[in-house]
Amino acid sequence: RLSFPLSEHQHLRYNPLRGSWVLVSAHRMKRPWKGQMEKPPEEDIPRHDPTNPLCPGSRRANGEINPNYESTFLFDNDFPALQPDAPDPGAADHPLFQTRAARGVCKVMCFHPWSDITLPLMQVSEIKTVIDKWAELIEELGPKYPWVQIFENKGAMMGCSNPHPHCQVWASSFLPNEPHLADLNQKMHWSSRGEVMLVEYARQEAERKVRVVLENDSWLVVVPFWATWPFQTLLLPRRHVLRLPDLTSQERDALASVMKRLLTKYDNLFEISFPYSMGWHGAPTGPHLKEDMSHWQLHAHYYPPLLRSASVRKFMVGYEMLALEQRDLTPEQVVTSSFFFFFFLTSVFTT
Amino acid sequence: RLSFPLSEHQHLRYNPLRGSWVLVSAHRMKRPWKGQMEKPPEEDIPRHDPTNPLCPGSRRANGEINPNYESTFLFDNDFPALQPDAPDPGAADHPLFQTRAARGVCKVMCFHPWSDITLPLMQVSEIKTVIDKWAELIEELGPKYPWVQIFENKGAMMGCSNPHPHCQVWASSFLPNEPHLADLNQKMHWSSRGEVMLVEYARQEAERKVRVVLENDSWLVVVPFWATWPFQTLLLPRRHVLRLPDLTSQERDALASVMKRLLTKYDNLFEISFPYSMGWHGAPTGPHLKEDMSHWQLHAHYYPPLLRSASVRKFMVGYEMLALEQRDLTPEQVVTSSFFFFFFLTSVFTT
Ligand SMILES: O=P(O)(O)O[C@H]1O[C@H](CO)[C@@H](O)[C@H](O)[C@H]1O
Ligand SMILES: O=P(O)(O)O[C@H]1O[C@H](CO)[C@@H](O)[C@H](O)[C@H]1O
Repeated sequence: RLSFPLSEHQHLRYNPLRGSWVLVSAHRMKRPWKGQMEKPPEEDIPRHDPTNPLCPGSRRANGEINPNYESTFLFDNDFPALQPDAPDPGAADHPLFQTRAARGVCKVMCFHPWSDITLPLMQVSEIKTVIDKWAELIEELGPKYPWVQIFENKGAMMGCSNPHPHCQVWASSFLPNEPHLADLNQKMHWSSRGEVMLVEYARQEAERKVRVVLENDSWLVVVPFWATWPFQTLLLPRRHVLRLPDLTSQERDALASVMKRLLTKYDNLFEISFPYSMGWHGAPTGPHLKEDMSHWQLHAHYYPPLLRSASVRKFMVGYEMLALEQRDLTPEQVVTSSFFFFFFLTSVFTT
Repeated sequence: RLSFPLSEHQHLRYNPLRGSWVLVSAHRMKRPWKGQMEKPPEEDIPRHDPTNPLCPGSRRANGEINPNYESTFLFDNDFPALQPDAPDPGAADHPLFQTRAARGVCKVMCFHPWSDITLPLMQVSEIKTVIDKWAELIEELGPKYPWVQIFENKGAMMGCSNPHPHCQVWASSFLPNEPHLADLNQKMHWSSRGEVMLVEYARQEAERKVRVVLENDSWLVVVPFWATWPFQTLLLPRRHVLRLPDLTSQERDALASVMKRLLTKYDNLFEISFPYSMGWHGAPTGPHLKEDMSHWQLHAHYYPPLLRSASVRKFMVGYEMLALEQRDLTPEQVVTSSFFFFFFLTSVFTT
């Protein structure tokens, strides 16, 4: 294998969580870019804006007034994609026109009372509070819904329409496509190898070292072997953990610290508040709380859109939408050339 | 079924080509948008720019000079994601680190010598020439490669880095994820129902009428029942056709005409040169040319990014990347409310 320099020739890599392939073309970073340039993130965000519906004391779309919260703040999304009471569309009249009921709730959680702060700028103890709230949300919504998706869209480039630091939680009466694939593939790995896929993977990556971005006693951050987005990372516990509420207090402290370090690295990479979408995948809940879900391992995906600089993103368009996802540099190149150049432990930003 | 107003309540719909689900939330268009605004497409594109490597007579990155072409013009991509001679990475040393060889060619095809023209502004006979060239490309590359992906990224919003009208062709030694899924699912439909999935689907849509955008004797354009992008369309022949070269000359004329009408409707929708990624899916080639591929039906997908206006796009981000794709209005709403308001047969633009 050493005779094949993975960083010089295009090849396919297998994503064992999705059961799909990624085209890795190591030499595409050399092409000139004359396409769309992204605007830098907004910079003069006021710490408090009484007209921003996410701020403490503001009035929201439904007329309610936010409390003067001092830490995190959770409320129901005023424009939910999922509502608890949607009727069942009933049986399909034809196999090509199949529908299924979709019920659920959508919530928003502010991370902090200030609008001009982000997770990497928050204190580790404040990030820990966010993690505790995430775990509470799984405990609260899990018994009722088979899937509780916690996710953060950060930055206008990722469709985030409010600069106030927040995440969303969409709980649903169904298991969505992505966790369904992750469930199937982890189950298959478990039955064929008798090992939890992502526990085995984390151990392998910790040994191979070439894709490790950060680690501590409880956590590992890698650019996964099958990453599609240029700076995509996968955050994994070292221990076998099914869901967020199963994390010990010590593991939550370690997670808060690793998140702060990862997001600081991201911010420093192109010297902007780094955009991404991120989210947690843990074992399904609802009826699955009573099943053996040992094949699952808790993990978080970070999907940042940028490619070359603060203003040039990776477009997942024609070929990617119609054929398969393609990346322009290898995951190993990312780790050696970019992430490792940035050793600063504090962000380029200050609050 | 009539008791369930699909346009009022969220529900899931099944995509039988991908075997995945889409969340349709009919009421999400009402939410206010304060997020990213897209720039309108560039307007003052010179008809001829000697520094643009796609223009007739220009020098390209590899030093070659383009001929003074007067119709279409095909050349090898100077920064290809696929090359014919990439070595085989060899067998994986571990099931979580699987690689496969990826070989192929990437070509670019200019549609027209002018930079300030687009397909909807071209004459039907000129569009027919493009279709003939597409068919030739499948005949030329098909024998060697199992998959020949023809696609167009139109507009800076879709990662297109050159305004000169062109498409790309990436032929590969492997069957990519999306056509692989389409192959599996069409095969399953064929064995379980004894009918070609998309021939049956086109007939059903022509009868049901509620999602039909355009039709003529040979072609049908629908917003598919399972569309994820707001203005996504599916272009289908009425007859059973495996691949582009199988189209008769009359069918190519009819295709050129339906393409001109569809793309004109798109341009008129928000009164801009409408961005999209589009591409053709036909039966796999290479070794599959000798197999029975009757379960396949030729079709083209159009994936436009816009949602509400020329400047507000749909973001497929957090929930969509981590859970499942979600749309903010139903396919039926799109057909009645938007496309049908635009009966103009000529574009708002002139050349
Ligand atoms: O080849 P182009 O036009 O330079 O590049 C564009 O299309 C490719 C194929 O969909 C994508 O991989 C690129 O991200 C996009 O910018
Ligand atoms: O709910 P928001 O933040 O208004 O909206 C954002 O996230 C959603 C979930 O990923 C997406 O469906 C929207 O397209 C995006 O703009």
